[in-house]
Amino acid sequence: MAEPAAVVPGLLERYRAGEVRALSRVITVVESGGPQAHALLQQVRSGLEGVARPTVIGLTGSPGSGKSTLTSALIGRLRASEKRVGVLAVDPSSPFSGGAILGDRIRMLGHHADTGVYVRSLASRGALGGLSARSMGVLSVLEGFGVQEGLGFDVLLIETVGVGQSELDVAALADHTVLVLTPAGGDGVQAFKAGVMEIADVLVVNKADLPGAERMGRELRAAQMLGPHDEHTFFPPVVQTVASRGEGSDALLAAVQAHRDHLGSAGLLARRLERARFELRSLVQQRAAALANTADEYLLEGVASGRISADEAARQVLGLPT
Amino acid sequence: MAEPAAVVPGLLERYRAGEVRALSRVITVVESGGPQAHALLQQVRSGLEGVARPTVIGLTGSPGSGKSTLTSALIGRLRASEKRVGVLAVDPSSPFSGGAILGDRIRMLGHHADTGVYVRSLASRGALGGLSARSMGVLSVLEGFGVQEGLGFDVLLIETVGVGQSELDVAALADHTVLVLTPAGGDGVQAFKAGVMEIADVLVVNKADLPGAERMGRELRAAQMLGPHDEHTFFPPVVQTVASRGEGSDALLAAVQAHRDHLGSAGLLARRLERARFELRSLVQQRAAALANTADEYLLEGVASGRISADEAARQVLGLPT
Repeated sequence: MAEPAAVVPGLLERYRAGEVRALSRVITVVESGGPQAHALLQQVRSGLEGVARPTVIGLTGSPGSGKSTLTSALIGRLRASEKRVGVLAVDPSSPFSGGAILGDRIRMLGHHADTGVYVRSLASRGALGGLSARSMGVLSVLEGFGVQEGLGFDVLLIETVGVGQSELDVAALADHTVLVLTPAGGDGVQAFKAGVMEIADVLVVNKADLPGAERMGRELRAAQMLGPHDEHTFFPPVVQTVASRGEGSDALLAAVQAHRDHLGSAGLLARRLERARFELRSLVQQRAAALANTADEYLLEGVASGRISADEAARQVLGLPT
Repeated sequence: MAEPAAVVPGLLERYRAGEVRALSRVITVVESGGPQAHALLQQVRSGLEGVARPTVIGLTGSPGSGKSTLTSALIGRLRASEKRVGVLAVDPSSPFSGGAILGDRIRMLGHHADTGVYVRSLASRGALGGLSARSMGVLSVLEGFGVQEGLGFDVLLIETVGVGQSELDVAALADHTVLVLTPAGGDGVQAFKAGVMEIADVLVVNKADLPGAERMGRELRAAQMLGPHDEHTFFPPVVQTVASRGEGSDALLAAVQAHRDHLGSAGLLARRLERARFELRSLVQQRAAALANTADEYLLEGVASGRISADEAARQVLGLPT
């Protein structure tokens, strides 16, 4: 996975000063875990206090919805207005899925020579099938990069490859979650059925040059009106894009800004506490799993034979009162 | 999700006597969770002592490998020799994946009128993205069905729809894990790269009428010889099937039996203890997540600001010593 990486003297300073190689090294250390990683991450985080944070945009949606192309279009648009962009491509893909690593795809799309764009792929999957707690750490590292020299990122884009829990986890990391749908394949209906719509702050109908895009947009808006709402409800904007031609990127960024205005500083802070909660939950679950692995055969045999309920055994393992 | 279900008087007796409607009801209660579910599951498990258990076969593999067709072919073959077959179709699918529930597909394949086949779909996904602890409970219910009258299942097939953690979790439930590959798409290479090969007890090259099947079989066998092995090593048999025509089902069942002979009774018992451990781990993680959700803002803010490391916070939440 991550190469073993030592914390060389001056690393944190060079990272804070905006040196890209130092950034890559800090990420590698944090991603690798271990006591050194924890200490470094804490230093990174303590440097974030009072500093303007990048806008963190998460992109989620079904495979084939064009997330990568949309990511690339957004990078292009943001670079045109001289924003510095960091991209975190999380690939906790199924062991069975083949396919290219997102980061490689983005690099191929022509941003690789641009020093205002930094792309990092995380191949590691969380012990729980979703994003790992380490992804959260890496995100903090991206947030704290170059802060000393005002060379930090303006926008961070997080995209996940593959399906499953990690698609939902992206919402826990981002300030703004963009759900990418297409007119094909009943995407909208599926998203509603699965309750995914609830995590979306902005809805994108990508490939809007395909038949049915208009109708899909209307249906999404109509469905929003069916839910409980009052005059304070923020209805996630519905944006039509044709990412392959760069169309709609401006409208999408405007929709993200609209959501940011809606959140306000209190809302943004609440999102970030939720991110810390997510990280904490991941770590707690990891530790709990390790505790379960120490359970002796007598307890396991008791569960298998019905002598003790699995629930009671779980309480015992955690040392909780009955 | 599961309909609210009461434990009606005599339910357990009718279930043990082999009444299918009682089986469905017991599954529904156990799947629904809650104190009633725990009590009922314990009763079911205590009735399993000393009883011959069904052979539990898990099928895993990439989408499109033909798992459902293979499941259907196996059902056909097993029914021809008058075995009673239970099928647990776990569908912890991505919120984005459309597609039919496996159970429906199997029913459509013509086994629906056969009283010797029972198919149950579990739509619920574990809190951790993989299979839920409840799937384990439902499996126990299937194992204990009809034991009093010798009307129990001879074979249980577990198949999962969708990709991700749940594909791997199936191995934790099954006595025998069948990994289904196809000659197309570099499946074999992918499986080796991801380490999935390690959970397989039997390897199936399905769609063996496609070009490359022979070569793939040779490559899989050659790869097995590259790993560490001695004279006691069990090399997962490689079986060629064309499930759509029912070809290779006999060979597959023979390969499963070969693995069963290799395991012996001690090996089977060890597998079942591992299943209990998996269930315990799932429940412990669920409880731990609930604990993390009670963390107060001060702690979360401490993690976000680097005042306390996430790792230390996790220890605090679990009440563990530093």
